[in-house]
Order: sequence, then C-alpha cells, then structure tokens
Amino acid sequence: MNRIITIGREFGSGGRELGRRLSERLGLAYYDQEIIEEIAEQTSLSKEYVKTIVEKRPVFSYPIHTARTLYPQTNPVMEQNLEIYSKQHQIIKDLAEESECVIVGRCADYILRDMEPFRIFVFADIESRMQRTREKSYGDDEVKGLSDKDLKRSIERIDRGRAKYYEFYTGQKWGARLNYDILVNTTGIHLEAVAEHVAALFGSCRDPYKEAKPQ
Amino acid sequence: MNRIITIGREFGSGGRELGRRLSERLGLAYYDQEIIEEIAEQTSLSKEYVKTIVEKRPVFSYPIHTARTLYPQTNPVMEQNLEIYSKQHQIIKDLAEESECVIVGRCADYILRDMEPFRIFVFADIESRMQRTREKSYGDDEVKGLSDKDLKRSIERIDRGRAKYYEFYTGQKWGARLNYDILVNTTGIHLEAVAEHVAALFGSCRDPYKEAKPQ
Repeated sequence: MNRIITIGREFGSGGRELGRRLSERLGLAYYDQEIIEEIAEQTSLSKEYVKTIVEKRPVFSYPIHTARTLYPQTNPVMEQNLEIYSKQHQIIKDLAEESECVIVGRCADYILRDMEPFRIFVFADIESRMQRTREKSYGDDEVKGLSDKDLKRSIERIDRGRAKYYEFYTGQKWGARLNYDILVNTTGIHLEAVAEHVAALFGSCRDPYKEAKPQ
Repeated sequence: MNRIITIGREFGSGGRELGRRLSERLGLAYYDQEIIEEIAEQTSLSKEYVKTIVEKRPVFSYPIHTARTLYPQTNPVMEQNLEIYSKQHQIIKDLAEESECVIVGRCADYILRDMEPFRIFVFADIESRMQRTREKSYGDDEVKGLSDKDLKRSIERIDRGRAKYYEFYTGQKWGARLNYDILVNTTGIHLEAVAEHVAALFGSCRDPYKEAKPQ
C-alpha cells in the first residue's frame, strides 16, 4: 500500500510548508490544492495526464506565496459545484494510486480513507497565523495594506470557507480530532523540527514493508 | 525554566502509559491524578512533604491498573469541592516548581500555563479504548463481566466527567485543540513509537538551554 500523507490546516498555520518539508524528507511527491485545481481545469480526467504529472513529481520552490489564496477564495461551497468536486475527487484518488505522496487540503483525508493515509491537521493561534501570513506575503502590497483587524477577518473568513467546504462534501466536522492521526499546534514551534519528528513518527506507523492492515 | 509535560487524555487511550514512557525517556518525574490526589489527602500543603515526594521521583511499575479509576469516579464536579481543587492546584504548582516532570490529568495544562508546559492530548476511537481497557484490566472480574455496551457506557461516562471537571475549573473546553501543543490519536499506533518521537519533538521545542520565551 502506498505511503500517503494528507494535511488539513488552518490558514496561515504552515500546513503547506510542513507538507513540502515532509515530502522532501520522505521522498514523496507533493500536491496542494492549487495543483489539484489546475489539473482538474486542464484535463478531463485523463489518466495519462495525471501520470505525466506524477512522473514529473512536481516540486515548487520556497516560499510558497500565500497571497494567491488569501483573496480569490470567497465561499468555496458556493463557487465549487459537484462536477468539479467529483473531478478533483477522482484526480486525488489517481494521484494517490499512482504515487506515494503528500496531499494538502481538498478533503483528501476523507477521499482517501480506504487507503489509510497518515492524516495530519495543522493549526496555530491567530496571532502567529497573522504573523506567518505577513511574512509569507512580504512584498505583496495588498496584504501589506491590510490592518491587523482586516487581516484577522480575512483569515477567519477563509477558514470558515474551508470548514463549510469540508463539511459539505464529507458530512464531517472540519478539524474534529478523530478524523486525524495527529494534530500539531505550530504556534512558537519550528516547522523544521515538527517535520523531522512527524516524519519519523510516520515511518514508525506506516512501515511500507509491513503488511497492510486487514480491512 | 523546568521542562514540564502535561497530558490530557480520553479514558483508555493510553495517556498514562505515554506519560510514563515519556518520563522514562526524558528522565522526568511522573505524577498522575491518583498520586496528586493522594498527596492532597495526606498533607495540608506541606512544601516539605511535596519535596520528599519529588526527591523520591515516584515511578510505579507497569501495567498501570485502570480498573481503579473505572469505577469510583462518578461525577467529579459534584464530588470535588473547591477546597480540594485549590489544594491540588497548589500541589501541582509545587511539584512543577521543584522538579522537571510529566503530569497526567488534573487540569495541569491550565494550572501551569505560566510555566509553558508542553501540552499533549491523547485520544483514540472508542473500539480501541475499549480494547485497551480490557487488556489493562485483565483479571479484573468487574471489567471482565461488563458487556461491550456497558463498558462503552462506562468509558463515555468517565470522559463526560473529565470534560465537566475541566470546564468547571478552567472555563475551557476539554480537548479543544488550541489548548494543546500536540494531539495524538493512539488508534492502531504503538505507544512506544509515539513516546520516542514525541519526546524528540519535545526536545526540539523545549530546549532547556534556550532562553525562556519572553512573556
């Protein structure tokens, strides 16, 4: 059974960076929501296309620009329709079947539940998420121009959207602890250390040479 | 600043065993709720008594018998009174000031918040908690005689008690993720592996040689 890690995360908590670091440490491919959305837009579910992507093992350079997701996303539940979700759903399954990977967002923990992914949820207090967002958006005038109050509101609005999206498609509460193997508070913790030790824990729990657990 | 770990846990999830393993790995003293209750009963807050306990670095042998807490605890909020809580509160502070330690239960994460403990919450699905309770209570006729349905009810009743106790004394929701640094689902995971990697993560986050964070 493929080694798969899924990451759910509060906005600004460093979930994508953790995902990237885990993928590098463990030699897994890395897919985040933008990548999956892009595949969904560019393909009509062509397995060949997914395979091409997989073979390229997409890895993008740091820092990941957060501003891109801070603005356009207003209410995913209203914006998305079932057809696109179903397309994404299939793409996520294809990616996980074709490659060992880290997938960030997109209800992947739920979609891949039969494949027993190692499910991580990343969160942090609002102050550290605001700080991280400002650091990652350094030079972005739109973020720079936001007052703390408005930035906090934007972050909370995005997370309300994520919660609604997750609940709409999975019928589960976003961030409810039983849906994850481990939940990590990144407030005041170096993501490098988290990645190192979570990768080791993942290794202990998901030994690829161990027989898959009986279903 | 002393290295301190606090552990909140669902009944039957292995929180005490994890606490014991962490205390052994990291060379910290270990205190669980029974120990603290016993100190509270036997002392009228004598610092000397606490110091004696600390110097003995109490370590008890595996397996910890769970049946003891499965029965007597009915509704802690009704049973406890503020005086006992206040006594326990002071004892927990004294223990944490006198020694580097792991403290299981008793709202220690909240009581010691100014000392920046590393706060762990341990949970698992109900099936694995039932299984663990049966294994740990092996030979205990009372637990052996319980049907699965009754055992499940007992476990859920104890956790409702813990939640009420925590919420009554801290004003916080028991198990809410922002009150912890890490939350670990022990379903299908070896506690030994969890202890190893959580201890390493704790080491990275709470380097005793690092300056304490500014308040």
